[in-house]
Amino acid sequence: MKHRLENLMSWLQAQDIEAAFLTSTPNVFYLTGFQCDPHERLLGLFVFQEKEPILICPKMEEGQARSAGWGYEIIGYSDTDSPWTLVSESIKARGINVRTIAVEKEHLNVERYENLVALFPSASFAAAEAKLHELRLVKDEKELAILRQAAHMADWAVELGVSQIAEGKSEMEILGTIEYELKKKGISKMSFDTMVLTGANSALPHGEPGTNRIQRGDFVLFDLGVVIDGYCSDITRTVAFWDVSEEQKHIYDTVLAAQLKAIEASKPGAAIDTVDRAARSYIENAGYGEYFPHRLGHGLGISVHEYPSLTDANTSPLRTGMVFTIEPGVYVPNVGGVRIEDDIYVTENGVEILTKYPKELQIIK
Amino acid sequence: MKHRLENLMSWLQAQDIEAAFLTSTPNVFYLTGFQCDPHERLLGLFVFQEKEPILICPKMEEGQARSAGWGYEIIGYSDTDSPWTLVSESIKARGINVRTIAVEKEHLNVERYENLVALFPSASFAAAEAKLHELRLVKDEKELAILRQAAHMADWAVELGVSQIAEGKSEMEILGTIEYELKKKGISKMSFDTMVLTGANSALPHGEPGTNRIQRGDFVLFDLGVVIDGYCSDITRTVAFWDVSEEQKHIYDTVLAAQLKAIEASKPGAAIDTVDRAARSYIENAGYGEYFPHRLGHGLGISVHEYPSLTDANTSPLRTGMVFTIEPGVYVPNVGGVRIEDDIYVTENGVEILTKYPKELQIIK
Repeated sequence: MKHRLENLMSWLQAQDIEAAFLTSTPNVFYLTGFQCDPHERLLGLFVFQEKEPILICPKMEEGQARSAGWGYEIIGYSDTDSPWTLVSESIKARGINVRTIAVEKEHLNVERYENLVALFPSASFAAAEAKLHELRLVKDEKELAILRQAAHMADWAVELGVSQIAEGKSEMEILGTIEYELKKKGISKMSFDTMVLTGANSALPHGEPGTNRIQRGDFVLFDLGVVIDGYCSDITRTVAFWDVSEEQKHIYDTVLAAQLKAIEASKPGAAIDTVDRAARSYIENAGYGEYFPHRLGHGLGISVHEYPSLTDANTSPLRTGMVFTIEPGVYVPNVGGVRIEDDIYVTENGVEILTKYPKELQIIK
Repeated sequence: MKHRLENLMSWLQAQDIEAAFLTSTPNVFYLTGFQCDPHERLLGLFVFQEKEPILICPKMEEGQARSAGWGYEIIGYSDTDSPWTLVSESIKARGINVRTIAVEKEHLNVERYENLVALFPSASFAAAEAKLHELRLVKDEKELAILRQAAHMADWAVELGVSQIAEGKSEMEILGTIEYELKKKGISKMSFDTMVLTGANSALPHGEPGTNRIQRGDFVLFDLGVVIDGYCSDITRTVAFWDVSEEQKHIYDTVLAAQLKAIEASKPGAAIDTVDRAARSYIENAGYGEYFPHRLGHGLGISVHEYPSLTDANTSPLRTGMVFTIEPGVYVPNVGGVRIEDDIYVTENGVEILTKYPKELQIIK
């Protein structure tokens, strides 16, 4: 945590910005180790060039912040306090003259912005997002260890889901069983709404699970992830039920080969667009280009969608320590959809695939 | 929907505000019937004093908005469009000179605010929240019908949860079964994270369900709600397992009597603080005042926490059509916690209790 704060402080010095004020749960967690969902209440972290940072949180959360290891000042406010007055006093005591302040422009709301303007009437506002994205882009060993665990539990959940497949079972039934068994293991938070899609529904890239029942000849698609210690996993697997047409098999083989191509292209220094295109060209050459309507993947960490974004327009290079998904998909209406997704960690000279559930086509009977 | 828009338009006229720009999913849903979670993308609704409103949403959501019955202009933008440029053109075409604009200050972020400032450089910004809270405060017949259904399913879920109680079962196991069975009925969205708390955990007003196992002499507390057609229910029931001490029984009787007192005090015109105090005084007189640390209840509708807020500081009167919870609780460390919560609709001359699961103390064996 200390190292992360120091990185941000160096940036403030280099940019000649006196203070950063961060308000989103993921960024505050990243910098403090303290995970807090304050609902409508204020959560904030002031970071300065040299002076010690200040954490602002509801009074009842103060103990949690301490347990999480936060050793600097905490302003804990009750529902009848004005957190802004307390903050103002604390910053004045540090003798800091704030001329520019970096905020999360995509998170900070206007009500809080107006309070900041009242606190620092002559300050100008800079955007803090890009710097935080950059800091979070490369994972350290501790983060990697947690992401490995989260991926392992995602594998387990898919394995369980596949074991539940049976004729006439509904998407929601299987989804419910997966989440139930995870809860029994003490995992209560999913990275996003779990998807179990079957038949025509698997051919919708944004299908929603419902009461569709599994029939022979269907694809069944699982897309899910779990949150462990604040970090997300994200896996997709598609299996066939009972039998599979030649065209379905061809789609599956195409998606799998494309996914392997993209993984093969992933290594430190590789431009992200070339990784996207490794999969995309393969799918295009197989004649399914128009049926692959989304990006190749996304960064993964505290947020289930973070940086880097794996698109064919992103020319940035992959860097050692990045973690992201590779998830090409082909969705052919009235035939079926297939997506295969792994969580990938970029090593010194290649990649480690964190999700390990098998990818060869399984036909469940 | 038309009536709701007209109400807002009348307010704009009365306040001499040329435009309102609403951005939160619940408020846009309330005014358009279109429920959209745009994630990081822009969702917005411009409403004017007289001219037709404009809905802004991702292009891929346009069809959904039409299906939901939206008959006015839609600006559907792709990821490569600038929605702000499109909005600017559309407002210019209406010939409206925006001098004041009402926005959701607690929802609109600074990045979007800066875009609005660029669009309307000389405009001043007013807060739209209070008006939207007021509009949503009184439910119409259609909303009531949905809230009744949602309450009915919450009853069903508690009944199921109680049937699952057995020695040694964990909180998460029972919670998982409840959500699994709801999913089988096609209900995938809960109003909030379901709580099943047992033993010492039930004595924490904000306990989190985990792997605690039910033992004889425990209270088991269920707090849950389901979302149906965009509206939330919220119920709490507490039952005892196998046997119950005199003190536990006394706590239960106190909470139940207090809850009934508050319901009895609820009718059109009754000041909210008197309703809160009807329950609070009863609990205080029974010697448990310090163990009832939260407000009596909260409004319920599209959001699980909305207006009115039932506190002992709110002197506003109850009005016909309001829907809210009444949920006193007493949490005595090392003895156990009891909370009993119903969803209440204020009728012409009294109340209708939407949640109907029995409240007399059940001892499960």
